[in-house]
Amino acid sequence: MRDLESRTAERRFLFPFTGKAVAPAPVWLMRQAGRYLPEYRKVRAQAGSFLKLCYSPELAAEVTLQPIRRFGFDAAILFSDILVVPDALGQTVRFEEGEGPRLDPIRALDDLGRLALSKTGAKFSLVCETVARLRQDLPRETALIGFCGAPWTVATYVVEGRGSADQSAARHWAYRDPQGFSQLVELLTDASIEYLSGQVRAGADALQIFDSWAGSLADDQFERWVIAPTAKIVQAMRARHPGVPIIGFPRGASAMLTRYIEATGVDGVSCDTSCPLGVMQKKARSGTVVQGNLDPLLLLTGGDALDRRVEEICASMNGLPFVFNLGHGIVPDTPPENVARVVERLRAKG
Amino acid sequence: MRDLESRTAERRFLFPFTGKAVAPAPVWLMRQAGRYLPEYRKVRAQAGSFLKLCYSPELAAEVTLQPIRRFGFDAAILFSDILVVPDALGQTVRFEEGEGPRLDPIRALDDLGRLALSKTGAKFSLVCETVARLRQDLPRETALIGFCGAPWTVATYVVEGRGSADQSAARHWAYRDPQGFSQLVELLTDASIEYLSGQVRAGADALQIFDSWAGSLADDQFERWVIAPTAKIVQAMRARHPGVPIIGFPRGASAMLTRYIEATGVDGVSCDTSCPLGVMQKKARSGTVVQGNLDPLLLLTGGDALDRRVEEICASMNGLPFVFNLGHGIVPDTPPENVARVVERLRAKG
Repeated sequence: MRDLESRTAERRFLFPFTGKAVAPAPVWLMRQAGRYLPEYRKVRAQAGSFLKLCYSPELAAEVTLQPIRRFGFDAAILFSDILVVPDALGQTVRFEEGEGPRLDPIRALDDLGRLALSKTGAKFSLVCETVARLRQDLPRETALIGFCGAPWTVATYVVEGRGSADQSAARHWAYRDPQGFSQLVELLTDASIEYLSGQVRAGADALQIFDSWAGSLADDQFERWVIAPTAKIVQAMRARHPGVPIIGFPRGASAMLTRYIEATGVDGVSCDTSCPLGVMQKKARSGTVVQGNLDPLLLLTGGDALDRRVEEICASMNGLPFVFNLGHGIVPDTPPENVARVVERLRAKG
Repeated sequence: MRDLESRTAERRFLFPFTGKAVAPAPVWLMRQAGRYLPEYRKVRAQAGSFLKLCYSPELAAEVTLQPIRRFGFDAAILFSDILVVPDALGQTVRFEEGEGPRLDPIRALDDLGRLALSKTGAKFSLVCETVARLRQDLPRETALIGFCGAPWTVATYVVEGRGSADQSAARHWAYRDPQGFSQLVELLTDASIEYLSGQVRAGADALQIFDSWAGSLADDQFERWVIAPTAKIVQAMRARHPGVPIIGFPRGASAMLTRYIEATGVDGVSCDTSCPLGVMQKKARSGTVVQGNLDPLLLLTGGDALDRRVEEICASMNGLPFVFNLGHGIVPDTPPENVARVVERLRAKG
């Protein structure tokens, strides 16, 4: 692994994390590798299933690289899925076309025996192999972001067996039997630490923790199921891999952002579309790297509406530690030209 | 219509809106009339369809009264649905069992001709008849809350034709053609004003505006589609019915709460489950009546977990202008005993 300082020096994405002002702002987009790209759809078809794609280092690396070739983003994000962790732990995950993930739900402590940290080796290794390939194949100036789902968000799928509107199965278990539920969350936390650590060892420059369902919890539950496990992951990464920036994405929890930053120790926060620019500004002013938060629908709309909002976001975050991104993932119908347009406009600010 | 002051004097729910401290806090629960009550299911079966129940003054009044008889809440909320407005405007709404609402979607300006304010009379009158019956049948000490969906939230159903995870159809139209979309929102705003005004004339003591999908909008869109129409409704109500308290419920938008309160002029805000108690405290300290925000799932769980959280919420809001409520509606599996338990515990604080 190359020396951290020298990596940072050549990768603009990492500048804001050292407190350096950087103009134009570095840019990458959540789900920048994906169905909106025809070259992705080709590889996806070749892979067979979605999870097979995640576990094929050559193909996963290829789709990770595609948007870098097209748009020259400042960071690539490992192509994978947050459900790799429960899948590797032994809870078989299936992706049904157009239906989203399906898992045999784990609803109570008795079911937890189906999962074991000892099972994760083979699948985690495949993902780390993708990371290692990527670090070799990426341009020197492109940072590589590794990631995992936050334990809370992954738990919602583990317990519900699928996506859900209000995560009620997991939330209800957490109320009914907090001790039992905490065993699930701890297992996911420990697995996430191993998983992220493997990604860093394989060459990831930074990490993002996706907590897509952080916004459904009351504040006391947020402390216990979002903040505590995230803080544990951050502490473990600090101890094992000092200097690797960690970005948290507690989606839908803008009202808890200050507490989240202080209590988890993340270096940066990714802000969802609904996070007010004023809140982002405030956080960035107090030294946290802020990422966000263009509405992905504006990439569908294009034109003046898109340009105007890009302008507004950049003006708000000007001179602050900021990474331009979306507030949520790119949607499949997005015209790639609109993505190119945003990158061009950002770069023109240099 | 009786004099406002004398009504306020005898209805504890209204006290916090006059700046009076009140212990124990007044209490009502969102969806307190509903499927968790066996007596509701009986009337619901008798009515045939869900919307027929909304449009049958006798039956709608009966189900509104049921939870008052059982639990003695400080306020009754008119039994109706936020989609009465588009239904009355001419966009036929169907409720399919276990499937949620279905509407023939209005996706662009050309479709808007299907809706007209002039059509609303008959259906709005039926709802107002329910209100008038209720004001006669309710105990003198029970306040009656009228309501509507906020124009933004109703528009998401009008455009999507059903509930959706991210309200993308409406959000996309708003980006693509803000002028056209604003015509829809204005029509819904004007209809809501007539609808609420009719409810106040028929005897509603207070109003709540439900903006369930306020949390999916970027801040600039929030200004235009949440704040502006809500402010217009509040201004119109102030002019027509001074002194009738208005509560806004911008669900999922806790990070925009300060702006929402200042810019709309609502007297109170209902806070969803994820709103931190610290934020609620702050708003109440600056004089806004705050309602909330017990997690409805705790009414399923019951026991110590329920008691503890009720205690925490009350302790946070002690001495402040506060109405105890849920952060979202009661879920159908809720044991009525748990509702009774909460009301008893609150009253024991008197």
